[in-house]
Amino acid sequence: MSRKIRMGMVGGGRGAFIGGVHRIAAAIDQQIELVCGAFSSNPEKSRLSGEDFFLDPSRVYGSYEEMILQEKELPEDVRMDFISIVTPNHVHFGPAKLALENGFHVVCDKPVTFSVDEARILVDLVEKSGLIFALTHNYTGYPMVKQARDMIREGKIGKIRKVVVEYPQGWLATKKEDGDHKQAAWRVDPAKSGMGGAMGDIGTHAENLAEYITGLKITEVCADLTSFVEGRRLDDDANILLRMEKGVKGVLHCSQIAVGEENGLNIRIWGETGGLEWHQEEPNTLIVKQLEGPATHLRTNVGTLSPAAMAAARVPAGHPEGYLEAFANIYRNFAKCVQARLAGTEPDPLHTDFPTVHDGLRGMVFVEKVVANSKGTEKWTKL
Amino acid sequence: MSRKIRMGMVGGGRGAFIGGVHRIAAAIDQQIELVCGAFSSNPEKSRLSGEDFFLDPSRVYGSYEEMILQEKELPEDVRMDFISIVTPNHVHFGPAKLALENGFHVVCDKPVTFSVDEARILVDLVEKSGLIFALTHNYTGYPMVKQARDMIREGKIGKIRKVVVEYPQGWLATKKEDGDHKQAAWRVDPAKSGMGGAMGDIGTHAENLAEYITGLKITEVCADLTSFVEGRRLDDDANILLRMEKGVKGVLHCSQIAVGEENGLNIRIWGETGGLEWHQEEPNTLIVKQLEGPATHLRTNVGTLSPAAMAAARVPAGHPEGYLEAFANIYRNFAKCVQARLAGTEPDPLHTDFPTVHDGLRGMVFVEKVVANSKGTEKWTKL
Amino acid sequence: MSRKIRMGMVGGGRGAFIGGVHRIAAAIDQQIELVCGAFSSNPEKSRLSGEDFFLDPSRVYGSYEEMILQEKELPEDVRMDFISIVTPNHVHFGPAKLALENGFHVVCDKPVTFSVDEARILVDLVEKSGLIFALTHNYTGYPMVKQARDMIREGKIGKIRKVVVEYPQGWLATKKEDGDHKQAAWRVDPAKSGMGGAMGDIGTHAENLAEYITGLKITEVCADLTSFVEGRRLDDDANILLRMEKGVKGVLHCSQIAVGEENGLNIRIWGETGGLEWHQEEPNTLIVKQLEGPATHLRTNVGTLSPAAMAAARVPAGHPEGYLEAFANIYRNFAKCVQARLAGTEPDPLHTDFPTVHDGLRGMVFVEKVVANSKGTEKWTKL
Amino acid sequence: MSRKIRMGMVGGGRGAFIGGVHRIAAAIDQQIELVCGAFSSNPEKSRLSGEDFFLDPSRVYGSYEEMILQEKELPEDVRMDFISIVTPNHVHFGPAKLALENGFHVVCDKPVTFSVDEARILVDLVEKSGLIFALTHNYTGYPMVKQARDMIREGKIGKIRKVVVEYPQGWLATKKEDGDHKQAAWRVDPAKSGMGGAMGDIGTHAENLAEYITGLKITEVCADLTSFVEGRRLDDDANILLRMEKGVKGVLHCSQIAVGEENGLNIRIWGETGGLEWHQEEPNTLIVKQLEGPATHLRTNVGTLSPAAMAAARVPAGHPEGYLEAFANIYRNFAKCVQARLAGTEPDPLHTDFPTVHDGLRGMVFVEKVVANSKGTEKWTKL
Repeated sequence: MSRKIRMGMVGGGRGAFIGGVHRIAAAIDQQIELVCGAFSSNPEKSRLSGEDFFLDPSRVYGSYEEMILQEKELPEDVRMDFISIVTPNHVHFGPAKLALENGFHVVCDKPVTFSVDEARILVDLVEKSGLIFALTHNYTGYPMVKQARDMIREGKIGKIRKVVVEYPQGWLATKKEDGDHKQAAWRVDPAKSGMGGAMGDIGTHAENLAEYITGLKITEVCADLTSFVEGRRLDDDANILLRMEKGVKGVLHCSQIAVGEENGLNIRIWGETGGLEWHQEEPNTLIVKQLEGPATHLRTNVGTLSPAAMAAARVPAGHPEGYLEAFANIYRNFAKCVQARLAGTEPDPLHTDFPTVHDGLRGMVFVEKVVANSKGTEKWTKL
Repeated sequence: MSRKIRMGMVGGGRGAFIGGVHRIAAAIDQQIELVCGAFSSNPEKSRLSGEDFFLDPSRVYGSYEEMILQEKELPEDVRMDFISIVTPNHVHFGPAKLALENGFHVVCDKPVTFSVDEARILVDLVEKSGLIFALTHNYTGYPMVKQARDMIREGKIGKIRKVVVEYPQGWLATKKEDGDHKQAAWRVDPAKSGMGGAMGDIGTHAENLAEYITGLKITEVCADLTSFVEGRRLDDDANILLRMEKGVKGVLHCSQIAVGEENGLNIRIWGETGGLEWHQEEPNTLIVKQLEGPATHLRTNVGTLSPAAMAAARVPAGHPEGYLEAFANIYRNFAKCVQARLAGTEPDPLHTDFPTVHDGLRGMVFVEKVVANSKGTEKWTKL
Repeated sequence: MSRKIRMGMVGGGRGAFIGGVHRIAAAIDQQIELVCGAFSSNPEKSRLSGEDFFLDPSRVYGSYEEMILQEKELPEDVRMDFISIVTPNHVHFGPAKLALENGFHVVCDKPVTFSVDEARILVDLVEKSGLIFALTHNYTGYPMVKQARDMIREGKIGKIRKVVVEYPQGWLATKKEDGDHKQAAWRVDPAKSGMGGAMGDIGTHAENLAEYITGLKITEVCADLTSFVEGRRLDDDANILLRMEKGVKGVLHCSQIAVGEENGLNIRIWGETGGLEWHQEEPNTLIVKQLEGPATHLRTNVGTLSPAAMAAARVPAGHPEGYLEAFANIYRNFAKCVQARLAGTEPDPLHTDFPTVHDGLRGMVFVEKVVANSKGTEKWTKL
Repeated sequence: MSRKIRMGMVGGGRGAFIGGVHRIAAAIDQQIELVCGAFSSNPEKSRLSGEDFFLDPSRVYGSYEEMILQEKELPEDVRMDFISIVTPNHVHFGPAKLALENGFHVVCDKPVTFSVDEARILVDLVEKSGLIFALTHNYTGYPMVKQARDMIREGKIGKIRKVVVEYPQGWLATKKEDGDHKQAAWRVDPAKSGMGGAMGDIGTHAENLAEYITGLKITEVCADLTSFVEGRRLDDDANILLRMEKGVKGVLHCSQIAVGEENGLNIRIWGETGGLEWHQEEPNTLIVKQLEGPATHLRTNVGTLSPAAMAAARVPAGHPEGYLEAFANIYRNFAKCVQARLAGTEPDPLHTDFPTVHDGLRGMVFVEKVVANSKGTEKWTKL
């Protein structure tokens, strides 16, 4: 018999942004229950956060080490099944490693780690342990992103020729890190974010989206990274030429100084016989283009879509589903896989569709190569 | 100390549409816990639904009467706090009345009842009992709908002159009720839906939205209702001229035979010095128009919006929030009011912003008058 | 052998709006030459206007009577072939009648006359004389309007059920007629405009568009007209329920007080198996909807459109064609018909596609009935 | 006293695309008269084209040499004032040079010549002769492009940081040149087009637009050009990183294999305090973005725009102006400058706003450097 799976959270205390998103995403489908947490390195703040979430105070911990080790000692029908890591980048590796070493599954925010080396260690640990590891490249959770991937798999636009993926944001156009904007502060700090600024935060989403939809790997990059805001140490803007497998050419650009842009991730793909276009801010539309004819605007839950696209939608056509629902699809699929594991069965293949530690490693390598190319003089750097 | 409030559900078993929406809406903000239900008039189906939701089998009931009466006997720290009614229209009144008579708060899907008379009785019961009653006119839960209302309150578009509210859908363009489409079947059945077809289902949403945003009541209607699909007994299309308080003129039209339309609720309002435009299918944009100048596109969480608009949003700008989040705002506000009641405090005024039994009565009267006018020969019928 | 046809203009002197539009529309396709004019009732202004247009001073006349009578005396290979009437509504009938009586073809701005009676006289004169009369309901000149009409003729959306046609403008939201806005002044003056304000100016365009595209006549109206701006004597806003031939229902609303609206004519039509949507401000797109499937966005000159739609476009896809090009299509077709007449041949049927004096009469009757219904108490008024 | 100026056309006979566009653009404002032409290298085709345009047969010439030399002998009040060159790229230089050497002004389609060397010769000739030379980079003729340029000049978006200019088309996604598509055939032929395929045809438009609006020059390029269609000798796709004056970074990509794209030129510019966005296919909107606030959608002729933007529009707001009107703005400004020259006066500064031979040379250099960079191994190539 099935049951809700039990989540322990690392980070995400009062005032944090992404922690709240993860909690909602985990709650939406009612397959996951938050049972414990180490919400902050500040024990008092962790305690108060536990109250906010109506948790048993005995399961609100002062550190992730404490949480993992103490939960392990609880009876099997009580203890958490997995941890959700929602801390800044430099605090992903520690809890992920410890959880895997102690038999807990993991959901981790992206980028997976602070460095490529850390990512490789996690890949090893996941492979050795057989535990389930989900990385929240949440944009691949949208129904119409899955539809795009599936149409390409089925050859609906022919052999792919060109990809343009963009991710403009404007929220770091001024030196917000000098104020009390907590997220801005760590995002631009190389000691916490890693070697990529905008690249690590959103460039990896763009890279992941392009590879997810096309099914092709980026093979070479030629990059021009900039820190526009004076005194900023990490890139806040990136323009990159891409070469991908099978002769595909492309452009990836992302920015956090694009004044007035909200969260403008979008992708256009052109093949020999068709084209696809998707915009994250209007996520329920997928524009399909053809040779010598008009475009069709596919919409979430209108007509017949691919099984994965239909499984990813919850409400009828015209009832817009958004960011949280797409994010929740990762949690739902992850939960279904954990439930199958608990039940000793194979998961439905539709449920295995979520980003993993391998996507995490790939993103880390991408950032490393882009940064290296931008600093160097060679035109193309291989991945 | 605060706690999650406990929900018992009436209707919404396996395969039902709106029940699932209510459960997600209740879950999103993690203030509500589903503890019991009478999910179907078929006891086996109710039992299986209980399993789906991981409920204690002893709290999965065979009927709403059973649920209300047995829950009442449970200890205070266990029993449900409120019921959520997600049955077809003709089964709203019974559970609502019984719940109110037994001290339970109520969330009810719209339209509030089958008839105006039933609605009046519920109004009385709510007023006498002092219990909290929320009606899920969910479209008023969107941040930009609240922003529109608040801008009008502040006089940003001057004295209102004209309102056009539309609600085109296409899902009943063919005789779907003859197949096995459960929702279609009861929606077009006068014995289950009441006197309005499209009017009751979506016309009331349009009416509610127009009155909510403008703060003005509709005073007279002139209507032309049609049943386009042969053999259908209730209207599937309505065109209505409106007159509202303070000399406002308007048009309301809705349809369920508008082929290709998904869920196209939208509203435009023009005042003496400005105009507002909002579309449910792109809910995070509110277009603001002015005399002799360009339009501004307000967006959820961009810049400074009204307190109610900001409170209604969960994630930063550009992370689209949709139907479920708007729906959840009704549940969240309702939950906060119940928690305040439990704590013996006054709720935050922002949390009292949800539709009530009074809106329900108003909707019933609106449908009654529209149907009467459409059948008669007088031009204008007063509400 | 073919030649350019020769135009004499009535009205349209310096500073007039619509006269300039007609001159551009006549010039675009290089089939028409402006040879003479009576541009103003002020002879000096008429003379100066003639200079602006590089005309022979001897053919710049002080009145339309003078122009028509003197041009008639010129040699056949010199004299004008037709007059273009671009004066306010109350000065349409005089020049049109005199031109027809003296053997000149006519292009006339809409509405065709000041009153229904005048319109009937012109219909008679055109029929008796056999002369060619074009009315500039220019919005039917757009390629995608012709495509919509042709798709309906071919049954692409099945039997029509519902039509919604809108024409919101905001330019008369304030009392502009009290300033020196020449066009505003005569538009709101019953002695110059006739019995309709917004109705005559733009309501007739909406009526004409709906009937042109659907091929169906409006049979009954139920109207609510308003003069929102204090002191204004003609309607500046209209909300109208429509009944059309073959059981079609509809809504027509137009306004000149819809603050912030530019020139928002648009139409949506739903049939039993499909739907069409067109917006004048994005005229190169026609949205085609279907049962249970996604919408297609037809675009000017993309793929294969109807012969009339293709003939109405001048440049390849993606090179936007606008208002002046659509207007020019009326002049081009008119010119081609006059050239055919000169050559003694039958015109290409594609070239006979322009509004005529009959459309003009129909528009006048429509305004008359709408105004009467709005003032009266009967619900429906037959046309 | 002013008069229409007289145009002789080189190329643009029956069936040609761009010749017809130039004739319409010259006709719209009624300041220019087509008086002669050498429409084709085929004398019979040239003669028939002359008939189509109602020309005096004695002024329909067999070659541009004949036209220029014979027109020069005609009386001053008869002979043409300028030539309009609408031939394929390799036939721009000859007629332009001969016209300038014989005292005729020139309008020339872009790119200005076949090679950089030819372009330099024309620059010299124009400078020495003092004659007027307009290059039809028509996209700078749009009102909202001028508005964008003027807002940047006035500092409305602060110091510019990033520019993204795109020009996707799909019309050469298949090997159309193997059929009877005349334009496709010469566009992909290095002997007729020059060293750039898509680069010469549309890449130069993108480059010109970016420099026109920003007022900044491109200083370095890093390019990846591709010929996707097998057997094609010139690029049909280009992805380019840009560096511009004052530290601006950017991306330019253009394509003629982007299936389903029509003529998607668009540009986004972000400065320190604002952003601008313009799309050629919806040319009457300019989106203006700001720090921490909503976007404003400026529209042609709505409210107060810059003098150049207002001068470039012909009809009121909401009456869409398109490609031909923008193109006509170059002809109108050119005509006004020639009229001023004839009158011995200085032209209105607003009328000197059109691209010149200098823009032509710049475009040629841009193509040369991009092609060189794409073939080479150095990362950045200076212009």
